[in-house]
Amino acid sequence: MSDPSVRVDRLRELLAIGPDDGVLLTDLDDIRYLTGFTGSNGWLFASDSSLRLITDGRYVEQARSQCSVDVVEARTIVEMISVVQRWATTRLLFQSSQVSVDLFERLKTVSAALVPIGSKLADLRRAKDPSELACIERAVRIADRALAEVCPMIDDSLTEKDIRDELEYRMRRHGADGPSYDTIVASGPDNSARPHHRPSARRLEEGDLVVIDVGALVDGYHSDLTRTFAVGSCDDVPRARYDVVRESQARGVAAVRSGVPARDVDEACRAVFRSNGLEGEFVHGTGHGVGLVIHEEPFLGSTSTAVLSAGDVVTVEPGLYRVGLGGVRIEDLLVVEETGSRVLSTFPKELICLPSRPTI
Amino acid sequence: MSDPSVRVDRLRELLAIGPDDGVLLTDLDDIRYLTGFTGSNGWLFASDSSLRLITDGRYVEQARSQCSVDVVEARTIVEMISVVQRWATTRLLFQSSQVSVDLFERLKTVSAALVPIGSKLADLRRAKDPSELACIERAVRIADRALAEVCPMIDDSLTEKDIRDELEYRMRRHGADGPSYDTIVASGPDNSARPHHRPSARRLEEGDLVVIDVGALVDGYHSDLTRTFAVGSCDDVPRARYDVVRESQARGVAAVRSGVPARDVDEACRAVFRSNGLEGEFVHGTGHGVGLVIHEEPFLGSTSTAVLSAGDVVTVEPGLYRVGLGGVRIEDLLVVEETGSRVLSTFPKELICLPSRPTI
Repeated sequence: MSDPSVRVDRLRELLAIGPDDGVLLTDLDDIRYLTGFTGSNGWLFASDSSLRLITDGRYVEQARSQCSVDVVEARTIVEMISVVQRWATTRLLFQSSQVSVDLFERLKTVSAALVPIGSKLADLRRAKDPSELACIERAVRIADRALAEVCPMIDDSLTEKDIRDELEYRMRRHGADGPSYDTIVASGPDNSARPHHRPSARRLEEGDLVVIDVGALVDGYHSDLTRTFAVGSCDDVPRARYDVVRESQARGVAAVRSGVPARDVDEACRAVFRSNGLEGEFVHGTGHGVGLVIHEEPFLGSTSTAVLSAGDVVTVEPGLYRVGLGGVRIEDLLVVEETGSRVLSTFPKELICLPSRPTI
Repeated sequence: MSDPSVRVDRLRELLAIGPDDGVLLTDLDDIRYLTGFTGSNGWLFASDSSLRLITDGRYVEQARSQCSVDVVEARTIVEMISVVQRWATTRLLFQSSQVSVDLFERLKTVSAALVPIGSKLADLRRAKDPSELACIERAVRIADRALAEVCPMIDDSLTEKDIRDELEYRMRRHGADGPSYDTIVASGPDNSARPHHRPSARRLEEGDLVVIDVGALVDGYHSDLTRTFAVGSCDDVPRARYDVVRESQARGVAAVRSGVPARDVDEACRAVFRSNGLEGEFVHGTGHGVGLVIHEEPFLGSTSTAVLSAGDVVTVEPGLYRVGLGGVRIEDLLVVEETGSRVLSTFPKELICLPSRPTI
């Protein structure tokens, strides 16, 4: 990662941390962003001059080698809170969008004024620096490559799970730490009509639409790619629906640039569906930010208040879903730039008809 | 899953839900347990006579096919809360161990008395029914089989990541939906001394200890298995440490039965380390419950207050960790029974020395 002290300085500036203030970070993704710590349990305490990580015995050694911060061991929540008490400042800022009501009650025992900061840090991780972009671009290349390799293997001898297994194995072999989320392989008139279908033992059939949504994980950073295929021939109706989604996706991509409200990108996609009388079948938002978390700020939906800015990495992924007829989704990952965007995914967007019988 | 209405009745009984009460469940694992819903967004509202799921457009179709509950669509938190308002009862119980301070502030707009129930549901999922045990046992068999297959392939030509990739691919091929957590392959004097090490590009070397911690996921249920191997020969010191861990693990397993305080199992393991002057190297708890969540109640540690009861599925996994010398951990998954326990894992626990050069 880039010099973490730069990120910690941005945190202090964002929260206007003064000499009487401390901030307790409990969100592990934020902690990873600020320190490099990848353990599954820990709190980060920052004042204007100190930075300290509290974690349990499983991670003490790991934290000391990963982070240039003071590491303090605590086995239980009670011990963690008593460590925070030792450092208590006049005001203690805490992540109220993440701290539970019960934990808040416990934190009240710390002799400091508790100040909720809501999701004020949501934007902290938005603009990706070059080291982050390098990870994301590598993750994109790995998923593109796995899909390109697996695509010619697909025919109606395979199940949804077979395809998922092959994609995930290949991403690993190409250097991914794993899939960046549960890979979606959704086929046929019903399964493909569920945006977040889980791969099943269903075998592909002639005439199916198959939605494949796959991403790779590289050093904590995610990628996110969706393409829709046809098995064998493709009738006029699904082909026409595919073309509408492709047009919608292209309009969305074209709308992305720094300074544009996120909801305008959603509207660009939605307008194409509306003019085709299909808006009711677009049952989710248009996209989301991607980074250390697969779904993060900025979100691109009709109620979004975010404004895109350079360095945001976002998906554009409109889709249509009708049970009995099937689903179509096309998704790219883009970097927002001052005058437009750069699409990271390279996999083609023409409708590919996969053979319905093995070709060998 | 078993008849979900039985589980919902148990929920109502546990919380003593009366005609003026509603409970809002926000924990997705609890919601899955009660309804079968597997989406990544949703709230469940239960009164003494109704059961309703609120989710977004991505999951409405899926929820209707997975659950026998009323499904209501809402796109945002604001919409979700206004749906809850429509059903408002005199008292609204909520999961205060899971609801954030910010969400709690929003819930205050609902015209009902908000009643925190903390983690009162933590024990709801503890006793596994036959359908759950069947999934867990299948997950155990898959991980055992993958490890048994991969074990003969391991030598010092492989990296930690290679071994992880092979294990996860084979678990998938044997029917797992995926690994049940990030598989750990931790080798050599430093990596193996980190209990939750992430597999790296480090190649195995003669004399290494290799800790492999691997589980499978089957229909949402997890398994959890750890074995430690030696590469090539094994010196007297690491072998002696292995023997201590094996003794500790055996004592822990022998202590498990219904009615025993969880901390007594931890103490049974810890006492063996203490009598060998090694307690300081046992840096984590002895075990945890396993089910829809990989770490759930009951936890087996020195500060645990739980008492084991029949149907609990728990790990027993003592370990020793010293940087420069390496780590050893041995872990089984057990079902607690009235008069003892049944160990589900079948993989042998003798120290296996893997060849330091390919055998072919």
